Amino acid sequence: MRIAVLGVGLIGGSIGLAAKRRLGAEVIGFDPDPAARERGLERETVDRMDDSIAEAVDGAEVVFCAAPVGVLPGLVSEALVSSGEQAAVTDVGSTKGTLVGEVRGPHQERFIGGHPLAGAETAGVENARADLFEGARWYLTPTERSSGLLYDRLQRAIADLGARPQAIDAETHDRLMATVSHLPHVIANVLVQQAAAAAAEESERLPEIGPSFRDTTRVAGANPPIWGDIFATNRDAVAREVELVSERLREAAELIRSGDAERVGAWHGAAREHRRRLLEADLVGGELYQLRLSVENRPGTVAEIALALGRAGVNIEDMALYPAPDMRTGAVSLWVAGEGEAERAAEIVRGLGHNVSVTR
Amino acid sequence: MRIAVLGVGLIGGSIGLAAKRRLGAEVIGFDPDPAARERGLERETVDRMDDSIAEAVDGAEVVFCAAPVGVLPGLVSEALVSSGEQAAVTDVGSTKGTLVGEVRGPHQERFIGGHPLAGAETAGVENARADLFEGARWYLTPTERSSGLLYDRLQRAIADLGARPQAIDAETHDRLMATVSHLPHVIANVLVQQAAAAAAEESERLPEIGPSFRDTTRVAGANPPIWGDIFATNRDAVAREVELVSERLREAAELIRSGDAERVGAWHGAAREHRRRLLEADLVGGELYQLRLSVENRPGTVAEIALALGRAGVNIEDMALYPAPDMRTGAVSLWVAGEGEAERAAEIVRGLGHNVSVTR
Repeated sequence: MRIAVLGVGLIGGSIGLAAKRRLGAEVIGFDPDPAARERGLERETVDRMDDSIAEAVDGAEVVFCAAPVGVLPGLVSEALVSSGEQAAVTDVGSTKGTLVGEVRGPHQERFIGGHPLAGAETAGVENARADLFEGARWYLTPTERSSGLLYDRLQRAIADLGARPQAIDAETHDRLMATVSHLPHVIANVLVQQAAAAAAEESERLPEIGPSFRDTTRVAGANPPIWGDIFATNRDAVAREVELVSERLREAAELIRSGDAERVGAWHGAAREHRRRLLEADLVGGELYQLRLSVENRPGTVAEIALALGRAGVNIEDMALYPAPDMRTGAVSLWVAGEGEAERAAEIVRGLGHNVSVTR
Repeated sequence: MRIAVLGVGLIGGSIGLAAKRRLGAEVIGFDPDPAARERGLERETVDRMDDSIAEAVDGAEVVFCAAPVGVLPGLVSEALVSSGEQAAVTDVGSTKGTLVGEVRGPHQERFIGGHPLAGAETAGVENARADLFEGARWYLTPTERSSGLLYDRLQRAIADLGARPQAIDAETHDRLMATVSHLPHVIANVLVQQAAAAAAEESERLPEIGPSFRDTTRVAGANPPIWGDIFATNRDAVAREVELVSERLREAAELIRSGDAERVGAWHGAAREHRRRLLEADLVGGELYQLRLSVENRPGTVAEIALALGRAGVNIEDMALYPAPDMRTGAVSLWVAGEGEAERAAEIVRGLGHNVSVTR
């Protein structure tokens, strides 16, 4: 099998590595940036780099367009025109509706949009890994115009890369991603905006920024070029989600102002349950349990804990550090799946001399 | 010096430990729950437990009321009536306006509200530590009715506990806390509400919940009794902040829908800068740098990294794990203060065979 990868960064490079190792495919790469071509070769993400799209896609059975969302329409069109009549062309962009709408014309039956849910936290071919897609959801957005034969080949190739392909229509994809991925970014942005405004208004300094603010705003202003493209190409779905949250917040403000303790309590408790259910849908090991402990924040403490759990084979699903203002002490929260596993983890941590509480 | 601690949980217990060790004070405790009294004694947080408030405060120079916000008005009143004319009475509640407004009457000059910014992430006397307040901001809310002499004694005692006392009026305190602490909780609640609604609407399953959703909603539904009290006693300030965010989100939705890439980019970039500035105000070691790396999520990898950094004396200010769907691989972000320190950390991590990128 011959695979072409157009754009050799984190995602393209990882596709190349996985296709070589897992599919035994011949992988031809192309990147408009000569330095990226060189790095991609050094990392052995492809068997060969070509200097043009036409050369790279020649004879390829599957062409992956792994470029920023903003340039995908042009890149996909060029890949379709340059590749053979048996080539499936796909992409890995985070939004799908705009692209799928723009790819029209004689070759449109050979294009099927795609989006692997992997690698969002790093970038660059130097972080590429053959197992990046292992177990990851990989959305595909075929339309009524798509070739069934090529769709079948594409979804097999993606399954062979280790991912879990799932067909979805482009509009639903964009709405779902707006809710669970794009919306939190908008909210984080607005929250820091608000805090900055408060800091400017108050002659007093703001109090130390607490862990809730850190967590809630961690993604504020993340990766501007990528997010600019996402906001641009999914603007209707994102705007609609943001408006819904705006409306829900107005209602929450009213509820809180009412002082109705029972209704406030029910609303707050429901949020706890909702989050648990949403996150647990992802997990195989059972419900998430939280271990909370206070530690000396001296270098090495967290390591000691993680190492002891690691030796015992306990997997940490999630982790948060809350340094105290002096940065010498702090609290640590660890999330472990399954009650038995959580209790075992708590025992291990206690054995290191820490006090630990376990909550669901 | 004699100190009384009414309510011996995480905060009360830590005050007791710190007062014994750092002030050399005699500490008398009281808790309405006999089991809590026993645990407090076992942990040696106090020298003696008394069975009534009147006994506990007898002869005390400073009385700390460390009970849930909802019961503080009654507790503070009883402490004022029972204690001597030379006793300063304070509390540790997260909201101040309601309490300060309710404590009126003949002894009001002896009450000064307080709020240490510490210990929010754990609970229970078993997590009490003598150094919990080391370097922590401790707000005090004297009024024009407060005794200057007792305020001075109280703020000295708090400084001697290791904290940094700061006077602030109760209303400003509540407004600041609404912005940086209470608001993120409301937003997290609303966001999971929204995602749950989307999951219910879609016949499709929601896609895997991404790291941005995890971070932004981590505090959703946190500790219901405490947050019920906070929403109840700071409802006007919280509702006002929530309404402001609601309005900002409406504006953000409009901006995103406009598709004006330049303005969207400026808004997004400003969020990045705002967050950096807000968080860095807390730090002494210089600007925060982010190290991003992909790792095998096998138990022990994170430990190995943290341990190596620990050995080299690098302090990790913040950390986030982003497990991949298969839970076997994942990305790690570490935040380190200061460019030189970040580069040194990156070198160490590279030495362990990981690829790492450093960004501001």
